[in-house]
Amino acid sequence: MVVEKSFLVQIADAAAAETLPRFRNPGLIDNKYAVGFDPVTEADREAERAIRAVIRSAYPDHGILGEEHGSENLDHSHIWVIDPIDGTRAFISGLPVWGTLVGLTIDGNAEAGLMSQPFTGELFYSDGEGAFYERLSVGEQARRLKTRDTAVLADATLFTTTPALYKGAKRLAYDRLEAVVRLPRYGVDCYAFAMVAAGFADIAVEAGLQPYDIVALIPIIEKAGGVVTRWDGGAAEEGGDIIAAATPDLHKAALDLLNAG
Amino acid sequence: MVVEKSFLVQIADAAAAETLPRFRNPGLIDNKYAVGFDPVTEADREAERAIRAVIRSAYPDHGILGEEHGSENLDHSHIWVIDPIDGTRAFISGLPVWGTLVGLTIDGNAEAGLMSQPFTGELFYSDGEGAFYERLSVGEQARRLKTRDTAVLADATLFTTTPALYKGAKRLAYDRLEAVVRLPRYGVDCYAFAMVAAGFADIAVEAGLQPYDIVALIPIIEKAGGVVTRWDGGAAEEGGDIIAAATPDLHKAALDLLNAG
Repeated sequence: MVVEKSFLVQIADAAAAETLPRFRNPGLIDNKYAVGFDPVTEADREAERAIRAVIRSAYPDHGILGEEHGSENLDHSHIWVIDPIDGTRAFISGLPVWGTLVGLTIDGNAEAGLMSQPFTGELFYSDGEGAFYERLSVGEQARRLKTRDTAVLADATLFTTTPALYKGAKRLAYDRLEAVVRLPRYGVDCYAFAMVAAGFADIAVEAGLQPYDIVALIPIIEKAGGVVTRWDGGAAEEGGDIIAAATPDLHKAALDLLNAG
Repeated sequence: MVVEKSFLVQIADAAAAETLPRFRNPGLIDNKYAVGFDPVTEADREAERAIRAVIRSAYPDHGILGEEHGSENLDHSHIWVIDPIDGTRAFISGLPVWGTLVGLTIDGNAEAGLMSQPFTGELFYSDGEGAFYERLSVGEQARRLKTRDTAVLADATLFTTTPALYKGAKRLAYDRLEAVVRLPRYGVDCYAFAMVAAGFADIAVEAGLQPYDIVALIPIIEKAGGVVTRWDGGAAEEGGDIIAAATPDLHKAALDLLNAG
């Protein structure tokens, strides 16, 4: 299935109308849990509501899996997977490195998707055939995304939100990887995966992702030339510990090291 | 001395003309050192050259201290302190959280300055009297920056580039601080200090800063209501280990903890 770009833009616009007016707007933040710090904003809930309305209107019988409002029609072959704001901590800290993620799985495989960053006006997307970037706010033409040709770990830049994600053996595995790359860098959630797709970073790793954290990004990275799997090499669609790499060789080298313990 | 906003915009524009066309443009990156990884781009050198030309033209006898092209007239009371691209690792990774920093010290005190982020079109600045934010690219009006009123560490968000900055006793001090804040977050260099000034983050800490990494940010944070010093409480203008906090109470609490070892 090829998804019309105009439909993806419609989704991004509907989300932006809810997220952008609330970005850097104090007083709208609450906590999902009474204890601890897992912020979720009104923007999150309202953006997902808006995205679901767009999808339902175009594809009333497709399934939808969202972070905020649960699931519907999950017995359908086509499932839209939504994270209205990936990087809520970036969002509440005023940083323009969060994104809206909406992906489409067909029979369990991620086939199309978008990551939009409305403050910068950026749209990273796959229509099911290619992977593209467009900066709507400045009227740029869409151009193809292409990963970098980095093949060895010593040349690679590595992104992760924070090493504190990893405990026990997983931390040792992450540390083995960080020790051999050219430059590790922390803190940017979905934006790191977009930078791998765009050829500005080589590896992104995260632990404990939900499907809605990664499904949208899979076709964007894969159709740009990259590889995304779980650390154990399994399909990334169901989430878990995820690694994206710019090339198959780099992906294999990273997996070998992560699983060398 | 009050610095005209139009002059600060002229500086930001001159820098942007050199940085922006090279942002996300592969092939322009080289290494400052043959060994290790300390990237500096052509953008860095050319932007500083352009900034110096603007300053020399308006204030031919003022001093200039830059990261890339050294110093001149440092015996003058008025010194402009330049970091053409703060956050070169963000720059080469495609992330829009680097900035151009230009500050003015008068008799050693930081009195005015700007941080510009040309990809997002943002300008954070102090004209010597107030602290302001403006998003030039979308035609927003300038508005006053105001820090958040966070007074205790348990309510504070904390930014640092990476805990790996800190070694030995310094790491223990940093860890004491991180352990008690509400949310630590890594990875955004100068942008973290701007977010403290703008009221979206509460504390930013870094180790081993050069004057050009911090001078421009001091008046922006102070005139927004925040406090910036070295960890030992000394003036931040000469660089070193730096902490910015949203309020005097929060600053004192953080300093007490950093120096409790």
